[in-house]
Amino acid sequence: MIAEILAIGDELTSGQRLDTNTQWLSQQLETLGIEVLFHTTVGDDLEANIQVFKTALSRANLVIATGGLGPTDDDLTRQALANATSTRLKLDADSLEHIQRRFSMRGREMPPKNQIQAMFPEGSRVIFNPNGTAPGIDLDYSVGMHHSRFIALPGVPAEMKEMWTATVAPSLAGQGTAKKVIRHHVVKCFGVGESHMEALLPDLIKRGREPRVGITVHQATISLRITATGTEAAQCEAAIADTVKQIHAAVGDLVFGEGEEELQDVIVRDLLAQGKKVATVESSTSGLLAFWLGAVDDQRKAFVGGHIQPPSELTTRESVEKAAAAIRQQTGADYGLALGTFCEADSSDDYFVALASADGVESKASGLAGHPEIWGPRMAKQGLDLLRKKLIAKA
Amino acid sequence: MIAEILAIGDELTSGQRLDTNTQWLSQQLETLGIEVLFHTTVGDDLEANIQVFKTALSRANLVIATGGLGPTDDDLTRQALANATSTRLKLDADSLEHIQRRFSMRGREMPPKNQIQAMFPEGSRVIFNPNGTAPGIDLDYSVGMHHSRFIALPGVPAEMKEMWTATVAPSLAGQGTAKKVIRHHVVKCFGVGESHMEALLPDLIKRGREPRVGITVHQATISLRITATGTEAAQCEAAIADTVKQIHAAVGDLVFGEGEEELQDVIVRDLLAQGKKVATVESSTSGLLAFWLGAVDDQRKAFVGGHIQPPSELTTRESVEKAAAAIRQQTGADYGLALGTFCEADSSDDYFVALASADGVESKASGLAGHPEIWGPRMAKQGLDLLRKKLIAKA
Repeated sequence: MIAEILAIGDELTSGQRLDTNTQWLSQQLETLGIEVLFHTTVGDDLEANIQVFKTALSRANLVIATGGLGPTDDDLTRQALANATSTRLKLDADSLEHIQRRFSMRGREMPPKNQIQAMFPEGSRVIFNPNGTAPGIDLDYSVGMHHSRFIALPGVPAEMKEMWTATVAPSLAGQGTAKKVIRHHVVKCFGVGESHMEALLPDLIKRGREPRVGITVHQATISLRITATGTEAAQCEAAIADTVKQIHAAVGDLVFGEGEEELQDVIVRDLLAQGKKVATVESSTSGLLAFWLGAVDDQRKAFVGGHIQPPSELTTRESVEKAAAAIRQQTGADYGLALGTFCEADSSDDYFVALASADGVESKASGLAGHPEIWGPRMAKQGLDLLRKKLIAKA
Repeated sequence: MIAEILAIGDELTSGQRLDTNTQWLSQQLETLGIEVLFHTTVGDDLEANIQVFKTALSRANLVIATGGLGPTDDDLTRQALANATSTRLKLDADSLEHIQRRFSMRGREMPPKNQIQAMFPEGSRVIFNPNGTAPGIDLDYSVGMHHSRFIALPGVPAEMKEMWTATVAPSLAGQGTAKKVIRHHVVKCFGVGESHMEALLPDLIKRGREPRVGITVHQATISLRITATGTEAAQCEAAIADTVKQIHAAVGDLVFGEGEEELQDVIVRDLLAQGKKVATVESSTSGLLAFWLGAVDDQRKAFVGGHIQPPSELTTRESVEKAAAAIRQQTGADYGLALGTFCEADSSDDYFVALASADGVESKASGLAGHPEIWGPRMAKQGLDLLRKKLIAKA
């Protein structure tokens, strides 16, 4: 089975926007054992879309398209698919009702334009979109002996991913035919720089090692990406488990999680497990710490709230420690976490983070380094890491 | 002239690496006035490459490929191009000497494998690569009346970009391919949905209109992308200015900015111009509003700080209005902006935003819609928009 991924839109062909849907879909197909051989991106031009759809249907068995399902005139996927497969567009009553309901929920009437989002090539299946007005399309198509399946999804990444996971991926399970199995696993670390981390793992990072271990850094968080290749999944997974064990032995509690986990995920989980709560004070990070914690703990069972202080109020170690103790007392939380103000003056200690708990207040000084864009995220992570280590000690 | 960009490599089709070369080349071609209609990515498979090259040569006049020029067995661009154009590969003595010199500079002998990097389809021109062993290929090709030019560059971004700038871009300008000038301008709007916006601009969004106007939505912010094509920059810019005027006339203060501007950029600018300050209270957005304002106003001359409240405290219109008034009083700011808690219960008014000023408190109710991921950003924008309209009235 050969797959092709299509991305549709002038904003992509003109270079105005970077397409990340295609990469994500490629990764998803790979985990299903389905080989992707082509990606095609095409602008908002009907003839060009028809041509690209025909080519894809003739050379691939599975075509996944994103974009062009909106209600406006430059959304051409429905029409192009009907033309490319010589089918007619037909109204789907259930989809129309779903779209109308989405508008009426917000107290509005559906604009007539949106009716087109309920039109489907005859014989196609509707892919339900719980979060938007654009349903997806799933159409089987054959020319002679060549069979293919065309799946059209919206270009909005959140909608596309949810529809993929809920509907498309389950329908593809078991259809992969790739002979090679590839498995990835990511170990997440925080607390040292990239080259320091590499020095701690000399034998693991070597080129040619199997499984392969790569280091990437994003906003001071280090990802160790393990890639194992083999003929069977179990063999890959065993090799990965062995490498993970070696990483833990070498770097200890610099490891905080795995996969997509961030520090705030781990901390909220630990707080909930221990029945504890945290409140925050921030200055230069201006709400970033609160946003991270609140996004994970959206019921706010562990993160009770916080303050954003004007800068210059939290420039000394003493003031940051006081702020941590004060927010703890004020909110009744078990932990008060405070992040100070960046001082760009000539100082070796450029900012402070502090954690107040029943044991008293501890704090840490750190220097500014790297691009100013990452100063905020790194400071927030240093604060989170202080809390993480405390929670480990208390576990 | 229609251009197509090709990217070659299994690491791209498998999703292991994100292709950024194609976006960069699209932007470069656009500044030369060359329209890109297709992007194609293909894995390391000879037959698939030949097929993709043939398709591109038949539907585009200019094909720019990156990748597949290395010395290893999975580098297939040279061979695929020779096959697709029915030409033979011939050794280029100058290129061979350059490659050998690069090895001897580092005290090494050229491995026999690298000789293939000096092989070129007969009739092609060599594109000099000052920083690597892979020269580029520049080949003219005609089938019947359709003429095209195929340019192959290495996939290493730094090498590719230097060769583009030094050799390829000047040759495209010199050949007079840049007869058409393309200019973009983006008008940013907030306050209505995509189809409502389209209904307000019926004549502007029409297909075939010149300049073209496209609508995209990101987290409830609408971008109207104007694309003008002409023979001179001044003509494009005049056409864009005229379209911008029509947009303003049709949608009024739904327009808040242009280009990369976000609501918080405009608000901080207006606050600074009017010598005013704002403080915030948030519940479900948990610091997002504060983070946006603090990131623009990093000196905090207009954004003085804020609070993050536990959820369930700000579920009623009254409580959100009180919170806006309280933070204003407490901080001495001119404006107090409060964002409430999402209520997922069955209610037509799902959340409230409120603005306190010297004129009293105003508030707005709104329903949840779309993917839960965008609820927070949209609520924060609705709050910012309330303040924006107030600042317009006061200007």
